Amino acid sequence: MSCNQSIDYSLYLVTDRQLLAGKDLAATVEQAILGGATLVQLREKDASTRDFYQQAVLIKQITGKYHVPLIINDRADIALAVDADGLHIGQEDLPLHIARQIVGPEKLIGVSTATLEQALAAEAAGADYLGIGAIFPTGTKSDADSVSLEELRTIKAKVRIPIVAIGGINETNINSVMSVGVDGAAVVSAILSRPDPLRAAAYLRQLIALAY
Amino acid sequence: MSCNQSIDYSLYLVTDRQLLAGKDLAATVEQAILGGATLVQLREKDASTRDFYQQAVLIKQITGKYHVPLIINDRADIALAVDADGLHIGQEDLPLHIARQIVGPEKLIGVSTATLEQALAAEAAGADYLGIGAIFPTGTKSDADSVSLEELRTIKAKVRIPIVAIGGINETNINSVMSVGVDGAAVVSAILSRPDPLRAAAYLRQLIALAY
Ligand code: NI
Repeated sequence: MSCNQSIDYSLYLVTDRQLLAGKDLAATVEQAILGGATLVQLREKDASTRDFYQQAVLIKQITGKYHVPLIINDRADIALAVDADGLHIGQEDLPLHIARQIVGPEKLIGVSTATLEQALAAEAAGADYLGIGAIFPTGTKSDADSVSLEELRTIKAKVRIPIVAIGGINETNINSVMSVGVDGAAVVSAILSRPDPLRAAAYLRQLIALAY
Repeated sequence: MSCNQSIDYSLYLVTDRQLLAGKDLAATVEQAILGGATLVQLREKDASTRDFYQQAVLIKQITGKYHVPLIINDRADIALAVDADGLHIGQEDLPLHIARQIVGPEKLIGVSTATLEQALAAEAAGADYLGIGAIFPTGTKSDADSVSLEELRTIKAKVRIPIVAIGGINETNINSVMSVGVDGAAVVSAILSRPDPLRAAAYLRQLIALAY
């Protein structure tokens, strides 16, 4: 995709194969996109490089078909290998300036942050967007720092790049998050672990539209 | 290092932090180089990307100081991040043609192979050298296929790129491996787990010289 195109971060799907309860990842991502997911981050925690690469090839076929941006978690080599639209890094991944050297100026780089200090530092270092959380308790990231809605509001007020809230967001609380004025909500189990991911995504999308 | 420079594969050290028995990795690598290791492959299996990157920065300082090539196992992003001399990939890592696209034409790419078929395929696909094994049983790679000295001799006769034998090689058997005419022997515990890595490397180097 072209870098001038503006990115819709509103319903940001983060994958986790452990939450699929037997469903196929690529099919589930396709259902999520058909339901309204606006961006997909492929996250693999224990996969071999070959397995991660092969998943990325499959998911890229889906995101490409629907012109939805694909972001790769952690691995700059996989982002390059499948020519993804971006890379998402956390505090345990490559330093941002090194990641930028590797993926070049065209790819989005998102950074996970949990404090205003980290957020301002990532913005200054050239992040394209921030993932802020964990907003609510979550089972998917055990070491996640927690960020209150008040802290989220403060960060949103002081940072100019797009902000995506993450952590335990689902249909019961997405309104409170979007009301802070963030650019998007990242969801994992609220789509992936649902029996009907298309319907789950569509409902979240509707709640987001109502919150704006 | 210059790409025209010919690489000395003869005593090829592969790292494994689990075998250090409390010794420091960078200090041990330095001792190994002072003892005669001609090339270092940094291999990390369970490290975070940040940890792997930081280890690579430290080891690059050592290999750079002594003008010994540094090869990164599996991770093309780490190889780019520290501007290593090469990348080593196995059958569970990126496909060779994708790895080449990512690291470019200048970096060495080595490929782990266990059969003549795999060796010829990797050579045809542009590998710069091959790691062949496991020659002897080893505790460091549980799923390693085994390759006999006779198979190693056959592969060496049919392949033109340099061949490094790997798997359970130590001071008691390195002579039998080098006698096959391979370009080098890769060692792990035969240097890393020894109380005096410099002396261990120097002795292996001597045995290699005698075998040629
Ligand atoms: Ni060179």
